[in-house]
Amino acid sequence: MANEMIRMTWPEFAAAGDCVVALCVGSVEQHGPHLPFSTDLLIPYDLCLDLSDRCNLLVAPPVYYGYRSQPATGGGMSFPGTTAVSAATLMKLVEEILADFYRQGKKKFLVMSGHYENSAFLSESAYLFTAAHPDAKVMLVNWFEMVRQETLDRLFDGKFPGWEVEHASLTETALLMHYHPELVREDRIPLQEGKPFTPRPAVYPEPAGLVPPSGILYTANGATAEIGRAMAQEIVEAIAGEISREFAPA
Amino acid sequence: MANEMIRMTWPEFAAAGDCVVALCVGSVEQHGPHLPFSTDLLIPYDLCLDLSDRCNLLVAPPVYYGYRSQPATGGGMSFPGTTAVSAATLMKLVEEILADFYRQGKKKFLVMSGHYENSAFLSESAYLFTAAHPDAKVMLVNWFEMVRQETLDRLFDGKFPGWEVEHASLTETALLMHYHPELVREDRIPLQEGKPFTPRPAVYPEPAGLVPPSGILYTANGATAEIGRAMAQEIVEAIAGEISREFAPA
Amino acid sequence: MANEMIRMTWPEFAAAGDCVVALCVGSVEQHGPHLPFSTDLLIPYDLCLDLSDRCNLLVAPPVYYGYRSQPATGGGMSFPGTTAVSAATLMKLVEEILADFYRQGKKKFLVMSGHYENSAFLSESAYLFTAAHPDAKVMLVNWFEMVRQETLDRLFDGKFPGWEVEHASLTETALLMHYHPELVREDRIPLQEGKPFTPRPAVYPEPAGLVPPSGILYTANGATAEIGRAMAQEIVEAIAGEISREFAPA
Amino acid sequence: MANEMIRMTWPEFAAAGDCVVALCVGSVEQHGPHLPFSTDLLIPYDLCLDLSDRCNLLVAPPVYYGYRSQPATGGGMSFPGTTAVSAATLMKLVEEILADFYRQGKKKFLVMSGHYENSAFLSESAYLFTAAHPDAKVMLVNWFEMVRQETLDRLFDGKFPGWEVEHASLTETALLMHYHPELVREDRIPLQEGKPFTPRPAVYPEPAGLVPPSGILYTANGATAEIGRAMAQEIVEAIAGEISREFAPA
Amino acid sequence: MANEMIRMTWPEFAAAGDCVVALCVGSVEQHGPHLPFSTDLLIPYDLCLDLSDRCNLLVAPPVYYGYRSQPATGGGMSFPGTTAVSAATLMKLVEEILADFYRQGKKKFLVMSGHYENSAFLSESAYLFTAAHPDAKVMLVNWFEMVRQETLDRLFDGKFPGWEVEHASLTETALLMHYHPELVREDRIPLQEGKPFTPRPAVYPEPAGLVPPSGILYTANGATAEIGRAMAQEIVEAIAGEISREFAPA
Amino acid sequence: MANEMIRMTWPEFAAAGDCVVALCVGSVEQHGPHLPFSTDLLIPYDLCLDLSDRCNLLVAPPVYYGYRSQPATGGGMSFPGTTAVSAATLMKLVEEILADFYRQGKKKFLVMSGHYENSAFLSESAYLFTAAHPDAKVMLVNWFEMVRQETLDRLFDGKFPGWEVEHASLTETALLMHYHPELVREDRIPLQEGKPFTPRPAVYPEPAGLVPPSGILYTANGATAEIGRAMAQEIVEAIAGEISREFAPA
Repeated sequence: MANEMIRMTWPEFAAAGDCVVALCVGSVEQHGPHLPFSTDLLIPYDLCLDLSDRCNLLVAPPVYYGYRSQPATGGGMSFPGTTAVSAATLMKLVEEILADFYRQGKKKFLVMSGHYENSAFLSESAYLFTAAHPDAKVMLVNWFEMVRQETLDRLFDGKFPGWEVEHASLTETALLMHYHPELVREDRIPLQEGKPFTPRPAVYPEPAGLVPPSGILYTANGATAEIGRAMAQEIVEAIAGEISREFAPA
Repeated sequence: MANEMIRMTWPEFAAAGDCVVALCVGSVEQHGPHLPFSTDLLIPYDLCLDLSDRCNLLVAPPVYYGYRSQPATGGGMSFPGTTAVSAATLMKLVEEILADFYRQGKKKFLVMSGHYENSAFLSESAYLFTAAHPDAKVMLVNWFEMVRQETLDRLFDGKFPGWEVEHASLTETALLMHYHPELVREDRIPLQEGKPFTPRPAVYPEPAGLVPPSGILYTANGATAEIGRAMAQEIVEAIAGEISREFAPA
Repeated sequence: MANEMIRMTWPEFAAAGDCVVALCVGSVEQHGPHLPFSTDLLIPYDLCLDLSDRCNLLVAPPVYYGYRSQPATGGGMSFPGTTAVSAATLMKLVEEILADFYRQGKKKFLVMSGHYENSAFLSESAYLFTAAHPDAKVMLVNWFEMVRQETLDRLFDGKFPGWEVEHASLTETALLMHYHPELVREDRIPLQEGKPFTPRPAVYPEPAGLVPPSGILYTANGATAEIGRAMAQEIVEAIAGEISREFAPA
Repeated sequence: MANEMIRMTWPEFAAAGDCVVALCVGSVEQHGPHLPFSTDLLIPYDLCLDLSDRCNLLVAPPVYYGYRSQPATGGGMSFPGTTAVSAATLMKLVEEILADFYRQGKKKFLVMSGHYENSAFLSESAYLFTAAHPDAKVMLVNWFEMVRQETLDRLFDGKFPGWEVEHASLTETALLMHYHPELVREDRIPLQEGKPFTPRPAVYPEPAGLVPPSGILYTANGATAEIGRAMAQEIVEAIAGEISREFAPA
Repeated sequence: MANEMIRMTWPEFAAAGDCVVALCVGSVEQHGPHLPFSTDLLIPYDLCLDLSDRCNLLVAPPVYYGYRSQPATGGGMSFPGTTAVSAATLMKLVEEILADFYRQGKKKFLVMSGHYENSAFLSESAYLFTAAHPDAKVMLVNWFEMVRQETLDRLFDGKFPGWEVEHASLTETALLMHYHPELVREDRIPLQEGKPFTPRPAVYPEPAGLVPPSGILYTANGATAEIGRAMAQEIVEAIAGEISREFAPA
Repeated sequence: MANEMIRMTWPEFAAAGDCVVALCVGSVEQHGPHLPFSTDLLIPYDLCLDLSDRCNLLVAPPVYYGYRSQPATGGGMSFPGTTAVSAATLMKLVEEILADFYRQGKKKFLVMSGHYENSAFLSESAYLFTAAHPDAKVMLVNWFEMVRQETLDRLFDGKFPGWEVEHASLTETALLMHYHPELVREDRIPLQEGKPFTPRPAVYPEPAGLVPPSGILYTANGATAEIGRAMAQEIVEAIAGEISREFAPA
């Protein structure tokens, strides 16, 4: 309980001292018939809770709503329930949250996203925040950039198809099986065959039919809780290394 | 699990049909040495989960960060950990979330806040959203406005001191004891005597010393889980009545 | 004439020195068949003119347009002529006016509103302004919070029904009778009986029929210019006290 | 009283029917040692009151704060008391006021400014408002563009120096003498000789010394209330003509 | 090539040292049947290139899109191809460009416009930028304000009709003939007779028929490349003088 | 000249009819010691000019200033001369330009960027624009996503190192050699050896030393005008195919 701010009291927060504040930003986005809408928040949030066992890290209350899902990376905005906010609002929201922690003396931040589409907007939030407060530092992490290719090859027996098609697919399913088995409807994972990714220019309004009807971009068959645990360990290790490099006490 | 969107899959959402979407907006605000920062989110969120057993209600992913805490109602911004966003961003965020559910065909909304300071801003969000989408309807509820004075008198033996001083005090403590006993540090509730409320003009920057050092505005002594359950029942009953009046199927 | 800025010349302003700048924010809102649209501006503005006889106070040009009228407190937006601006614009406007006086060296501000619905937005303006200029100070006053309950009981013979229903009713009518008898259509005050206030959740779009057709929430019968003068004296006295406490010369 | 909205009641407004709504936008700007800060508001506002005797015109509550004073046209921002808002806020404010009258069914608007620096921003407000509401119509009038050169030559005996130097000078002084003699400090008008206007590129930050120390750009000697009355008559006549051309009942 | 940033490399920029940065803002606006849409950008941009032979001036990448064309000064928004951005966006864009050069150590700026309608908005950009960075300096130049009346009388044989009607007319045609003869369709210049300017209040939405069907406000007959060259020389001379006055090395 | 709007007249624009409007968005970003700041604009702009020989395409005036350069993809903001605007302004600017062409009846848009960092923001512009105007269509193209891997392998003899390190490197140099040999300083291309890309979490403020001192991420040795022409042909072919698929006449 100690490092999860939504469960903490103010005297506990006051005792946390010169910690890194971790802000997780997710999405409310379909993740196939077997994973919940909050998948993109749960994965970084759980990774941060694990991280807080190794670093002096305070896990801030999360931001559930992220940027609009794109067909090529998240299934797009046409699946029932996928709900997003504008770029402008997301950027302001994250910048203001960082700034209000800074007001309290916090200067080290890990902004962690599980939703690829958030990336550019979180960069702008971090840029604007640190431009206004140059003695603060923000590290911006997409968890899926912290796993080595070798690891993926090993864990998935050389069948990892590349991150371009990883939405509600092997890695997210494995990580949820590890962290929240009660939220994975294993019996509803379709026997969907993955198809290679063919990039096309984005077209607006979003065309129908770009994404398999399940919402899974490739396949979730082959994911296990064990694979999820191994991935989580490697990611936590890698981020812990970055944190000690970037936020080392002077 | 069925009605808590963060745990649902998209086919479950698609099956929800013509439901009321409940959006809870909280705060990240100190609540004394015994209650967690998320108190203002947890209470409306749990009430909505209860409500969803009685109405066709879908509980949307919550918004943790709310408007700035005021000394007279929430202890103010100077307690460690109290973290807020601007009025402009909060208004935009809520308006956009409503609008993106509307894009998917949802037209009935319950916006539920547990943080008094959010009220005026949520009103503006609801105004702007329905001005743009006149066939939608938003009901805006502060849970603390849904308990009868008689009930409070009965539950607290005539010692309920009025809502003006209810921050981290009797009612919030009782409701958390009912919904989340594991989050209430009962042993840290100070033996603080309540003092009557003397309204003063608000002064900015926020002066020091307006609030007792504990962060509790009055007293939390006397709260029990039983009182919390009784309050929760009455509130859920009252909101269910309002929902059936305002959102009755034509 | 000396302290009303709209009537002053720049050498007179320059001579005012280290004064408190009073900015009044009103509304353009129906006030029954007997009071003018500018009621919510006139009352604080006239109170400030009185105040300027007692304190070193400069009364800035006023802001007529305020935030949207709510049914429960002002009759709502559906009465002919009630005209408002958005929360975002009102907040920016007031923040910028304060900041532009600050640019000229003014650091003490009284922001005075006669329209309950403005309150939260003026707070945000004051917060943002003083966050950017921490050596400035803003006191935010709603005139109706500066009258003692005992006074109201005495002046209205124990029949004061509570502020929740005071719109275009006893106190506003009395104060206008005192300050601007020529603007009160006494012959058009309906013989309306007040009804107790029953709070209900706010619903958007604004439902019809929440407010008596007159636009008066309770009753204006019983108001007199004498009562108005007594109230004005007490309010001016109270604010003068607060000013001397908060803005005392160092 | 009938057409000045700040003095009207809602039933009077309701009776006004299909009128032109006149919104006056001024400035809080030094006008020499002899004219008040509100000069740029008073002139258009009084002209509109006169106009309302001739047309079905409703004079809306005014906007005192206008755009920043420029040295070449208003003396600049460095005179004590000159107080302005940003372009962005002024534009939003005026657009929203027009839109909220439109919500009530008003579609004919006269936006009248007495402050040259407002012009471009009021144009944008009018553009955006009518782009969103194409069945509305806005006429934008600077009063000083409604006087014929011949008239000025006649009234000032051929000594009218051109509008470029008319700030707190002959025309504004004459109009205030006509409308508000009590606000003109005739004894403080300096015996200042006018100088011809030499345009220079604008430089920011505003350089010192561009404007005579009085704040009068040219001279106010020679202004009389009679000249003011003659000008007012011609302006009212001219605007009335434009109104009947542009807002003729179909 | 040396001073045109779009053609420069970063080491060349780095070598420019303590120069004046010239930012040109144009419009995408019809300029009759004979001049291109970019006329309002090309003229200031070419003038700045000439200037950079005389001063230490770096010509920044230009901004093509300017503020909305007004009928009285640019033909209005109804001609095919006239394309504009909002005031709010134009102001932000220019302010941000200045600020990002300032981040790199640049503090001397020439903002040069060839589109009258940009003027007020560029002023606000310059005001806001220098208010945030008081050690920077911005000179704002409309090229058409830098030619002496005597010169115009001489070059056009006393037939220069005044700037009010100069859109796609004599001066712009002459300057384009000088700088870009390949872009002037001389054979399509209509034999249009100029008409004197009669100012009228602006009306929104923009009425049809205010402007001659050619888009030329007055006449382009009589323009020559020689006149253009003479004008360009005088303008460059005048701006060079202003630059040496305002940006003299300390 | 016919399809380059900055060189066109309004009658030529009017004759273009139901064309696709191509808007190019670049950056002002260092591109090594040998390529100009406008590289990211010139490449898409020239490609569009080529495209306009094959499709009914109108090339709109370009937008030079793009989003902030990131170290990993463009060298970052610390190189002299790299100048950018905020995400919020870039998004508004592009959305408004599209909307103002739509006002004129244009409904088919190609938004073409040569700067990877613009991508997410242009997506939001396109989303917001088409959400407001659902009968319009926007295709968003990054030119570097339109070349086949086989082609790159063939043209660069199997030594193409991947797009992650392509900044001011092989492909941009080759394309500029083809389109603008006069702007390529071939003699200043350093004999820099490329290094493989090692992704790291982004850190703000931008750390020093992430990028080779030249500003070239990999190497520009081996680029030729012939390679540039071959790439250009393939890209134009590919986009032409997409245009005919997406914007086929009904």
